[in-house]
Order: sequence, then C-alpha cells, then structure tokens
Amino acid sequence: MLNHFYSSLRLPSPPVGRPFIAINMISSLDGKVTVQGELKPGSLGGSFDRQTMNVIRSRFDAVLSGGNTLRSHPFYLGVPQEYEKDRVSRGLNPQPYTVCLTGSGRLDPDGPLFQNPPLPPIVLTSSSGAENLDPAIKQVSQVEVLPEGAGMLEISQLLLDKYNVHYLLVEGGPSVNYQFLQAGIVDQLFLTLAPRLVGARNEHSLAMGDEVLPQPNEISLLSAHPHENELYLRYQLVW
Amino acid sequence: MLNHFYSSLRLPSPPVGRPFIAINMISSLDGKVTVQGELKPGSLGGSFDRQTMNVIRSRFDAVLSGGNTLRSHPFYLGVPQEYEKDRVSRGLNPQPYTVCLTGSGRLDPDGPLFQNPPLPPIVLTSSSGAENLDPAIKQVSQVEVLPEGAGMLEISQLLLDKYNVHYLLVEGGPSVNYQFLQAGIVDQLFLTLAPRLVGARNEHSLAMGDEVLPQPNEISLLSAHPHENELYLRYQLVW
Repeated sequence: MLNHFYSSLRLPSPPVGRPFIAINMISSLDGKVTVQGELKPGSLGGSFDRQTMNVIRSRFDAVLSGGNTLRSHPFYLGVPQEYEKDRVSRGLNPQPYTVCLTGSGRLDPDGPLFQNPPLPPIVLTSSSGAENLDPAIKQVSQVEVLPEGAGMLEISQLLLDKYNVHYLLVEGGPSVNYQFLQAGIVDQLFLTLAPRLVGARNEHSLAMGDEVLPQPNEISLLSAHPHENELYLRYQLVW
Repeated sequence: MLNHFYSSLRLPSPPVGRPFIAINMISSLDGKVTVQGELKPGSLGGSFDRQTMNVIRSRFDAVLSGGNTLRSHPFYLGVPQEYEKDRVSRGLNPQPYTVCLTGSGRLDPDGPLFQNPPLPPIVLTSSSGAENLDPAIKQVSQVEVLPEGAGMLEISQLLLDKYNVHYLLVEGGPSVNYQFLQAGIVDQLFLTLAPRLVGARNEHSLAMGDEVLPQPNEISLLSAHPHENELYLRYQLVW
C-alpha cells in the first residue's frame, strides 16, 4: 500500500453540513460498467484495481452501494485487515461502514455481508422496504427508514449526523451514482478506465437516469496514473 | 500544429490486404458520445479537441462516417487548408477522402458535404440505397454499391484497392464503430475523454451493437495526454 500512487492521497475537508462524497467506479473504454449484466467489482478490473479500490476505501468512513449492486456482490464493503492500522492512525474506525441503499428491502440474510460483519451494516430503506427486510438482517444491521421523498442530500446528512460519516464513498450502481450526481453533492470521481471494449447496448454505464445531468461548474482532472494498460483517473467536481 | 503532441505521431505500416484502421471519438466520463441525441463532433469537445481531430485526420487517406452521423453534421471530413502542405510532404493527397457509409442512401444533396467538395465523397451504399440517392449527389460523388452482406473488411479492402486508402480513419457513429470492432480490424483507438457527465440512459456510447464485442488479444495504452481537463488517449488493439 505504501507504494501505491494513492497512498499519499489527501482529501479536502468536508463541506459544511454534509460529508465529503466521492464516487469510485471502473468502466470500459466505451463507458460500460457491466459485462453480460454483471455489476460485480472485478468483472472489468484486475488485482491492481482491487488494491486501488481498497486504498481509496481506506480513507472513507463509509462505503455505500445500492441494493442491486449488493445483490450481485453481497460482500462487506471493507478493507483488508492490513489497512486497519493505517486507518486507526488517521483517526478512522478500523473498517468503514457498509451502507446499503435499498428501496425494496430485498436482501439475502445469508449473504456474506450479514455474516459477522466487522461493523453493523447500515441499511437505508423505505417503510415498505423495512417490512420486507429479513429479521436476521435487522438483527445484525442498523436499519434506517427514510422519510418519503428523502434524497441523497438527506441521506448523506443522516450518515453524518447519526454515524459520524465525514467521508462517504459511493460505489454504484448506475442509478445510485446518478442520484448523487443529480443532487450536485459529488465532490470527486475516481474512475478506472479498463482496456476493454464492451459494445453491447444493454450494458450499464457509470450513471444512468432519465435526463441529462445538471453540470458541475467545473470538472478538473486532478491526476491520471497509468498502470499497465489501466488508467486511474481522479476528477474534482465543483458545483 | 507543430507543437501538438500528435504532430510527431507515427502510425505503423498497414497490415497486408487492408488499410491500417483507427477510430477517433470523444466521449464523456460516463462513456456518452451524444448529448441530447446530438452526434455532432464538438458537442462534447472544445477547440483543442477539434484541432486534435484535424491533426489526426491529417495522417489518413480517408475519413469514414455513417449516414446518421453525416446527416446531423453534413460536412466534408477534411482538414483546414494549412494542413495540406504537410500532407503532401508525406505523400498524401492534400485532403483525405470523405467516405459515407449509408444503407438507406438518404443524404441531403444541399448539405455542405456535397457543395464543391475538394475530392468527390465516396458513398458506400446498398443497391436500394443507390436508388434513393439524389442525382445531385451522384454527380459529385463516387458511388459504390456494396454486394449484399459486405462487411467492414470488404469495405476497407475496396477502399484500399480502388482508392489507394492505406490509412482509414473511422469517426462513428456508434453502430459503424461497433461493426469495425466486431470485424476485428481496428488497429488503434483515439479517445478524447471530455470532463463531462451526461448520465441520460438514452444517449449513445462509443460502440453500440447487440452483443458483447469479441475482445482483442490486447489493448495497450500507447499514450495519455492531458490538456486542460480533457484527456487524449491512444490505444493499440492487437487481434
């Protein structure tokens, strides 16, 4: 980790009233984040991309994914144990929280996410979603029933106020990313460009919604690191 | 042009039996090549991207686009006059051919593409497309009626054999790019990554077809040039 180009990464202070929010995604050269419908991290990237994902996660208080993403890859969104000491020395919990945003509440209680998680996963859901939640999930999780119409700003404020989440990392899927961008509260984008061409029109892209997104005032390229044929990009979004 | 990072660009010799083929496209960070359905070059990029497009075009014998792309942007796919001397010194025609691939033959004879073109545009079409072609277009163009089932390999061979096209640049749209990639005959990809996030699910991406594309044996990142917040990437595809 010490030799990773992100090992000296400095994130700005969070804005007033909400966490600092970043998105981390990997996409093909033609902008696809799935292959054959798979949303799994790792279907496009190699081991160095997974390492980079961990280095990035190691700076955040919480890692958030949508229910679809967690259904196809039901793992705790944490870091390997060897990153814990570094996190603690920065004043963070040894592991980030895993935050699951699910409208339906349909999550598998037998998935590894809910088997001895290092911290109780935070499940953000609707009142009907809460009814669908398996009791075994409720037992090991912190369930937050969101008020009707709560947007990504309210969600991130809840995470700040109740769970001390000052740095929030969003890892998809496309609809969740879209909603955070639409709310104008994404501060940075970590984008791995994988040397792949997918081409199938039905595959997903990084952010997917009905309308063209409102544009930040500026999107600045902070850094570009090639590694083998992958390209690790970091952008700053100013709203 | 002399100070452009691509001014010393060296392209490999063409393979035996077909031209060297490259694709040049600009896309947003989320892989979209259109905004509000617009396929026009320039809807995502700025003046430096247009300059880069010209520097790239200046190395090619012909620039090919599909009918959809040329209908929304009906201009000759040439270079500014100041590039002509450099082209001639490299043994190229002063201007590249514009090649239009149209199944339907529905092209606007009054578009600037067909008004005093520096070289007759080469219109590749089907037999029914040829019937739809406006007589005014036939007068100023070289019309090639493709045999039923002709693929991108046959098209590129025709351009080599009949028009001496040793270097062919493909500039979209998504379906044309897809077909060249599907045929496994794209040697390089020039990709401009624009600092934009589009997000709308209906916008087009770089290559669009029904199936996941066959993968090249390798996609190598040849160079990455940031310019302001745009990123100019060049990849080599080995099949």
